[in-house]
Formats: sequence, structure tokens, C-alpha cells
Amino acid sequence: MKTGMMSTSRLKQLLDEQQVETPIHAIVRALGGEGSMSAAALCRATNLAKSTVSVALADLKNSGIVVDSVIRERNNGKAGRPAREVQLNPNAGTCVGIHLELEGLRLCVADVSHSIIDELYIPIHQDYAPFQGLTAARAGIEKLYKSNSLARSHLLGIGISISSPVTPEGVIHKASILPSWAGVNAKELFSNELNAPIFTDNESNCAAIAELMWGSAANEKDFVLLKIDLGVGGAIVSNGSVIRGIAGGAGEFGHMMIDPHGALCRCGNRGCLELTASFREPVQQMSAILGRPSSIDEIILMAERGDMGARRLVSNCGQAAGRGLAAICAVLNPPIIIVSGRGALAGEMLIGPLKFEFENHALIKSAELAAENRTVIKMGKFTHNDSLLGAVGLVLRSLSSSLSPQLILNSP
Amino acid sequence: MKTGMMSTSRLKQLLDEQQVETPIHAIVRALGGEGSMSAAALCRATNLAKSTVSVALADLKNSGIVVDSVIRERNNGKAGRPAREVQLNPNAGTCVGIHLELEGLRLCVADVSHSIIDELYIPIHQDYAPFQGLTAARAGIEKLYKSNSLARSHLLGIGISISSPVTPEGVIHKASILPSWAGVNAKELFSNELNAPIFTDNESNCAAIAELMWGSAANEKDFVLLKIDLGVGGAIVSNGSVIRGIAGGAGEFGHMMIDPHGALCRCGNRGCLELTASFREPVQQMSAILGRPSSIDEIILMAERGDMGARRLVSNCGQAAGRGLAAICAVLNPPIIIVSGRGALAGEMLIGPLKFEFENHALIKSAELAAENRTVIKMGKFTHNDSLLGAVGLVLRSLSSSLSPQLILNSP
Repeated sequence: MKTGMMSTSRLKQLLDEQQVETPIHAIVRALGGEGSMSAAALCRATNLAKSTVSVALADLKNSGIVVDSVIRERNNGKAGRPAREVQLNPNAGTCVGIHLELEGLRLCVADVSHSIIDELYIPIHQDYAPFQGLTAARAGIEKLYKSNSLARSHLLGIGISISSPVTPEGVIHKASILPSWAGVNAKELFSNELNAPIFTDNESNCAAIAELMWGSAANEKDFVLLKIDLGVGGAIVSNGSVIRGIAGGAGEFGHMMIDPHGALCRCGNRGCLELTASFREPVQQMSAILGRPSSIDEIILMAERGDMGARRLVSNCGQAAGRGLAAICAVLNPPIIIVSGRGALAGEMLIGPLKFEFENHALIKSAELAAENRTVIKMGKFTHNDSLLGAVGLVLRSLSSSLSPQLILNSP
Repeated sequence: MKTGMMSTSRLKQLLDEQQVETPIHAIVRALGGEGSMSAAALCRATNLAKSTVSVALADLKNSGIVVDSVIRERNNGKAGRPAREVQLNPNAGTCVGIHLELEGLRLCVADVSHSIIDELYIPIHQDYAPFQGLTAARAGIEKLYKSNSLARSHLLGIGISISSPVTPEGVIHKASILPSWAGVNAKELFSNELNAPIFTDNESNCAAIAELMWGSAANEKDFVLLKIDLGVGGAIVSNGSVIRGIAGGAGEFGHMMIDPHGALCRCGNRGCLELTASFREPVQQMSAILGRPSSIDEIILMAERGDMGARRLVSNCGQAAGRGLAAICAVLNPPIIIVSGRGALAGEMLIGPLKFEFENHALIKSAELAAENRTVIKMGKFTHNDSLLGAVGLVLRSLSSSLSPQLILNSP
């Protein structure tokens, strides 16, 4: 770990010098954001000449900041040589992700080469207070670092995923899942106590970052994410950045009003998309029919086994989501829509009706469009831990932040 | 005009060299996009030192490309010296804007200092064919240049505003106002025949560009425009660029479905926002009551004079628009919403109910937010000719295009 200690302090220094634009700085930032890259990919990302990248990489390898990574096949099925890649030294730095859940915290630690080292769940209880979350986070981080023999001095930053709109400044507004956190500045709270840079974002925005960095949207710059679970969440990624909105309320697709005479929503409005496109009502209905608590997973399993009632519930969710996506498409007309969340595990039983109603309600129909002008709907890669992964992603992406412009509709 | 001829060819050359990054090029691009600027503003826009800007400006003035502009008061009511500004030489180049209207073309010509020189309307007839539009455009441009003693060789580009979604490539998809134009590539059609660079965009996107360059959104980078007229149009400006979407369908707010049981819309869907937030139905109802054709202007005038029926029609439009904007806000949460179109001439009678219903349906209420996190709703500056002005703006903005990144959700 001696190399680790030296390379950590040098890495921290390089990352702190965000205004400096030497080839070394540019390469370190690119690797921080991307994980593993070939020399050719580094040339493209940094706009540097091949020879410049070679010299800088030799220097970075000598000082232990960059190492060769496992050679990966990246041929997309075509013949050709697999590319040799480099990455930041896993010993040079670690990041922590925290997802504030209903009754506790989920944590993970990852290294700067984008490998998840370990995960941990700390139960608290429903409606836990901010100071309890903070205490649990401190204990969880200590446990993760101790049990994996990691040096706490290697911690580069902590990303926090929150089930509520969060302002760009870190203030939690609507705390439907965490009522006692309303009005709390999570960024300030955690950075005062945990002595590390803190990054906060809404859980669906974190989910989008996970899909962007390692999932179905890898290599995409512009897409919309719709997360179908017990609620409906969403995110907008534009030019590689998550759009947050002036109050952190962008991508709150679940609370678009799609029926003026619809039922009352937990947010206080009527006819929100979430009421018909989430699995909350299906779970309630199935629980009533079975006379015991049911779940999203059970409904999907029943539907897969041919239960007509379960199939109808899944199909109705898909139809409502498709209508909602058509309205979102009238606003954004995105090139790609990623459907994720536990509801997406229903696969074609959900996506089929979703696509049918999307097309039915879309202003510009696919048949009128050349293939390159059509919106593509595809499944997300992650269903359960995307928000936690995205929380780590917040930190890893911050390492490369000076590379990408982030001025779009008040993105972070 | 001798200076004009010389400076035009030099200006064209400078503008063609989009990859070249000398101070001279940067200053010419900034002035092309902004019109008139102080030396201090040029330093900020180009990131150049004051002395560098001084030297380059002296050079540009010597060659007749840049001239001093009329000194304008820019103190926002505070005491202080008015700033001395410079602009591109009005004689150095001209641009044409064309708005394809229902029964003919509206044209204007402007110079590179952002002054409108003249306007012209050429009637054709309803459902005119593309070749008729092209013939009328050619004749109109000749007439405008002849009657204003302008040299055709000074024409830098033509911007065309179209009442339909337009793909980034220039293809017209849905041609609700111009049925015989469906599928036509307007950019190709006009550039083949008019021998000038052609820029095309949707009319609401052009309206947003007019507000951005000279109107209520001057100096803003991120806003949403909602245009209330006989239809409902919209546009999204993100980081200073209009978002067009993968098929040119972004900002089509009028066709968000806000009522699954609503009436049939001309687009083929049900319950579109346009059905309740536009003045089409109010005009139909007032015409039926009066027994003769009424108009937006008449309804607003009647409402201003106290007619309770007219007031109700205006107020209902505002309420529907407010509900629609709340849904748009759940998607984008923009810092600013500009309300424009002829309907906006109703002022507080429309905006009052609009703001009330917006707040009523917004996910995050203003009262929960610090002032800097609130969405501000304000009136547009233009009501009638914004699309035509924006068409000219398309050309003027292209002059500075290499300055601004435009990769956001497939913006132009």
C-alpha cells in the first residue's frame, strides 16, 4: 500500500487542480470518468496527439497513478484485435456511494478503476432523522474500509442518492419517503461531519448516471430514463449531463398530470402519471385479491405463469407509461428512452403495451420517420441497485468534471 | 458601397473560417451573434485580454468590417457612463428571414448589425405548393434588395421559419398548415435554388430565438417558451441553444395529452393541451354567439371592456395553460417560462389564472422554495412577428456558431 499512499496524494493533487490543462491532468480526468480506456480512446477524449498521450502515460505509470487494466474484448462481435487498456491505479483512491432508503442506508465502496469493492446495508427504522442517517453513514464507512483493509485517507468523495427532489445546492425539498429530512441541506450535513467532498442527487438521476456509465446508455449522450417501480421516477440526460432543473425538480415524470379527473396523488395533485404507471395500485389490488401482502416480483411471476389478472395489471401499467412517455416525447423528443425499475423485469409483457400506446399517442409517428429520426425505447440494465451505483458514479464523474460542459438547464 | 463590397468578401471569408481561432475571428463571431457590444463585453465573450481586443478592433475598423455603434444607455437606471459599443459594419452583409404562412410568405431583410431594414408580405393562396413558395421567395428577395439598394452579393444566408416540426436536416414532417410540404427537405429545396446558406427551424423555435436575441429572454441561457395563439406552440432553450429533438419534435407542448377522455385533436390524438389552452375554441364559441367571425384580438378587447363571457374564455385558456405548464415543469423544472403569442396580449386576465393553476398543479410549490430556486413566469416581448425575426436570428446566430457548444439533445 506504499505506492497507494504516494499515488493517492498525487492523484488528489491532480484532481484538485481543475483549472490546469496539461496532458497529465486531462488523462487522469478522462480515466476518472471512464474507468478503463485504450490509448486511442484517450487521444479522442483529450484531443491530444498519440505521442503526447504515450509520453504522459509512461510518466503516470512510473508514478503508480495509472496501471494496465485487464485486456477486454471490445469488438462488438467483429473480428479484430482486442484493445489494450489502462486505468487509474485501484490502490490510488476510493469512493463511497450511499443510498438513503426507507428504513436504512445502503452503502458501497468502489475504487477509481470503477470496480465495486464491497456493499453494506445498515437498517435504522422508518422515518429516521438526519442525525441518525449521519451516524449510520459514519459507522458504515468505517466498517467497509476496515473489513476491506482500505485506508480512509484514500477516500476521494462520497455520493449520496436521495428519494426526493434535491436542489443543485443539496437541499431536500419534498421528503415523501424521508419526512424528517425536508429542508435539510444534505451536502452541508454530511460534509461537515464526514470530512470528504460530498455529492448529492435524486435517486432517479443517480439511476440514469449508472445506466450512462455502465448500463444500457453507455456511450450515449442524450436520453430519457423512466423508472417503473412502486413509484414512477425519471431523469433527463443531455449532452452527457443529468438535467436537474432550477429546484432539482427536472425529470419528475411520475408527477406529470395526465388526467384532470384522476385520483388524488401522495404529492397533493390529481391524476399524476405515477397513479396509473407505477406498480403501487397493482400491488394493492393483488394483495386484496390474495388476502395477504403481494409484491412487484410476485405479480410479474404470476403474469409469467399465465395468470390473466396479473397480466392485465402489468399490461395496464405499460399502457399508462406509454401514454406518459408520449407526452414526455412532445416535450423532449429524445433519441433514446430507457425503461428501468423493478417493473421493467416484466419485459415484453410491459414493454409491448407501453410501445403500442406510446406510438398511439406520439405526435410524430414512427412510420413517418427515417430510422435515424426515431425515438428508440429500450430496457435498462439495472433494476435494483442502480441508485447506489449512480451515487458512486457522482463521485467518479466529478473527477472528470472539468472536461465536460455542464451548463444545461442548471445541471450540476 | 465600395467599402461594403470589400468588407463583405472579407467578412464572408472570416465567417467561413469556422475552425480558425484568431482574436479577429472570435470578435467577428461574437459581434455577429450579439449585434452591438462594448469592448468589455467582447473581452468576456471571447476570453481575450483587453489589449488583444483593442488591437484586433483597430484592425477590424481599419478594414471597414467593424464600426462604432450608436452609444446606448445601459445602466438599468443606475448612474454611470453609458458604454461605447462596436458592431459589424451594416454595409458588410445582410440576412433574409422568411416565415412560411398559411396563404403566403412573410419576408424581411436585416443587416449584420442586427437592424431590420425592410419587411414584405407576398400572398399566394391556401395550400400553396413548395415550388410556388420558392418562386415567391425568390421574387420577394429580389424586390427587397432592389427597393433598398442592397447588393445581392452581400447576402450571407436565409433563415426559414416553418409552422411544423422540422428535422435537424430540414425535412418537414407534419404539415398541418402546409399539407403539400409534408416530406419536403426545405433546406435542400431553397439552397439549390437561392444560392445562399439556408437555415430552417420550427416557428416556435424561431419565436424563442427572437426572445433570446432581442426580447424578454435576452441574456438568459435556459428557458421554456409557451406560445398561446390559435394553436399552442413551444420551445426549449438550453444553454443558449434551442433543443430540437431527434425528429425536430421537441417543444411541441400543444400536443401533450393532458386529458385521456378529451376531444379529438387535429393531430389525431385525444385531449391535447392545445384543445383547451389555445384560442381556437374561444374564437369558435364567440363567433357562434356573435353570429359572425370573431378573433383573438376581439375577444381580448371585449374582455378588457368587461364582457363576462369573453373574460371567462380568456381565463379558461390561462387555467389550461397553467396546468400544462405544471406538467412541463415536472419534466424540465426550468428557471424561466416565457408566455407569448397573441393570447398573451390579454395580460393579467390570462396570466393571473395561468399562474394560479400552475402553482396549484406544480409538484414543488413556490412557498417551499428559496427565491433563487423558483420558476419565474413572464410575458414575451413579441406577439406577431417573432417567428419572422427568429428566422433572421437563425442566420445571425450561425455567424457565431463556433463559439457555442450545440450538442444538447440534438440541437442544431
